[in-house]
Amino acid sequence: MAITVVGSVALDSIRTPKGEVEDILGGTALHFSNSAALLSEINLVGVVGNDFPKEGFEFFRDKNVDVEGLQIVDGGKTFRWKGYYEKDMGGAITLDTQLNVFETFRPKIPEKYLKSDFLFLGNIDPDLQYAVLEQMTQQKATILDTMNLWIHNKKESLMKVVKKVEVMVLNDQELRDLMGDDNLIKAGRALLNLGPQYVVAKKGEHGATVFGQNGEYFTLPAYPIEELFDPTGAGDSFAGGLVSYLDKKGKLNFETLKKATCYAIIVSSFNVEHFGIKGLEKANSKNIKERYREYARYVHLPEI
Amino acid sequence: MAITVVGSVALDSIRTPKGEVEDILGGTALHFSNSAALLSEINLVGVVGNDFPKEGFEFFRDKNVDVEGLQIVDGGKTFRWKGYYEKDMGGAITLDTQLNVFETFRPKIPEKYLKSDFLFLGNIDPDLQYAVLEQMTQQKATILDTMNLWIHNKKESLMKVVKKVEVMVLNDQELRDLMGDDNLIKAGRALLNLGPQYVVAKKGEHGATVFGQNGEYFTLPAYPIEELFDPTGAGDSFAGGLVSYLDKKGKLNFETLKKATCYAIIVSSFNVEHFGIKGLEKANSKNIKERYREYARYVHLPEI
Repeated sequence: MAITVVGSVALDSIRTPKGEVEDILGGTALHFSNSAALLSEINLVGVVGNDFPKEGFEFFRDKNVDVEGLQIVDGGKTFRWKGYYEKDMGGAITLDTQLNVFETFRPKIPEKYLKSDFLFLGNIDPDLQYAVLEQMTQQKATILDTMNLWIHNKKESLMKVVKKVEVMVLNDQELRDLMGDDNLIKAGRALLNLGPQYVVAKKGEHGATVFGQNGEYFTLPAYPIEELFDPTGAGDSFAGGLVSYLDKKGKLNFETLKKATCYAIIVSSFNVEHFGIKGLEKANSKNIKERYREYARYVHLPEI
Repeated sequence: MAITVVGSVALDSIRTPKGEVEDILGGTALHFSNSAALLSEINLVGVVGNDFPKEGFEFFRDKNVDVEGLQIVDGGKTFRWKGYYEKDMGGAITLDTQLNVFETFRPKIPEKYLKSDFLFLGNIDPDLQYAVLEQMTQQKATILDTMNLWIHNKKESLMKVVKKVEVMVLNDQELRDLMGDDNLIKAGRALLNLGPQYVVAKKGEHGATVFGQNGEYFTLPAYPIEELFDPTGAGDSFAGGLVSYLDKKGKLNFETLKKATCYAIIVSSFNVEHFGIKGLEKANSKNIKERYREYARYVHLPEI
């Protein structure tokens, strides 16, 4: 019962209509761990510089995240991202990206991680994702994310990875771009022919859609958030919720994936209510259940 | 058991990635009637020129739409709209609008329409909407739509109408614009303070959201359509489905409005599968029920 996650650990500087923060804990692997640790044991593979702050290591320790796979580059600087959101909180606008130690990152999987039940590949260079897949072969399922940079610049490498995973989780616009089809339904179904058994499209305020074999289809809107504070990491904490739910149930099939998606919708709704990791700090099994019950009322299809 | 609908009757020329058509039957009141006639008796208030084609009158006759309130301007030309949709079928791009007889349109409500149970005010000039409201006072509820033109140019007139209606149905972006709030949840709730008991936001491929009193909230995604043919009239046939469902049940409350919204999602899904009125030609109580059952599987929230 453990998940290995491979992805960025970062220091983010973010401005939203609600405020501004500098060098706060961020990155895919960190946001993923932040939600996944509520249900699972996490093994983290990533890289930081030795400027990575003490509270970062404390965060991992508090969440019981194993960091044997977190490389610390002596004299190196941690990956930094700086960006802002407009009033509508649509997409993040990047002001500055400093890859730093991430530029020469080569993931190494510690021996003990090999027994993880699930592997999550964050949106790093698909060649690195592939290298991880070659090292890890015992997991029940691999869940893959990507981003537009790789869809546009390293599509061939990406498609080699896509072919080998069980689940692909990505933004709706990335899904449309990857398949070259503006119709999300067609794009999702087409991607199923290229390798994955399941595709999960993340749609932000519009929720998520799951595509499975033989026309299986599932879709629900997001939990309504009136005070959107900072969307950074929402997609990663969604993925963390989803994979940790699968890990807890110990299996992957369409029914479990539907439930995992609904759980992920609710968990990630906490993420956006504060900057960085702070939103999810308030989440626990009790208020996740409460929010789920409330959500059930909002989306319950009546008989007509 | 009847609905009075006030709105445009038009001839549309449309280009989509699926094809091109010229001077086909269109307009709010016509698309509204196309879906609403499946459940209700419709009284239509609008205007055409005497170039309005025979098949238009045949359409109304076949649907049992009462056209005593449809003014025919001798020597006048029917309202025409010309536009196209890009590959992603996002919003329509207008190429040409000829108001023609619509420019001097003053709605007159026939005596026998006054007993209608429901009134739907399509997105015409809010001063005209107000004039209709002054003539019609016996209905159980008035359902109001609008458009960006009036939100930006005649907001004061519009707000006078908003104050007097029970339900407002509008696009999500229009709702954000009207309330000056990018957060749809806040915009919907804020609008409830200005008059309507209920607000329904139409969200295209993302479905619809209903806001009610005391924090009542309901939201569901759209029925998935792989072959989107022509979105023109989808919002109007959604409104037609919604109001006709209310009319059939003979009452307006949150539970009935939820059901009406779900029915409207399914009925309007037929609209987009062909040009103009043709998509809905295939809809009947049997395949609407079938589609609803299929939809229920897609959006059924599992217990976790």
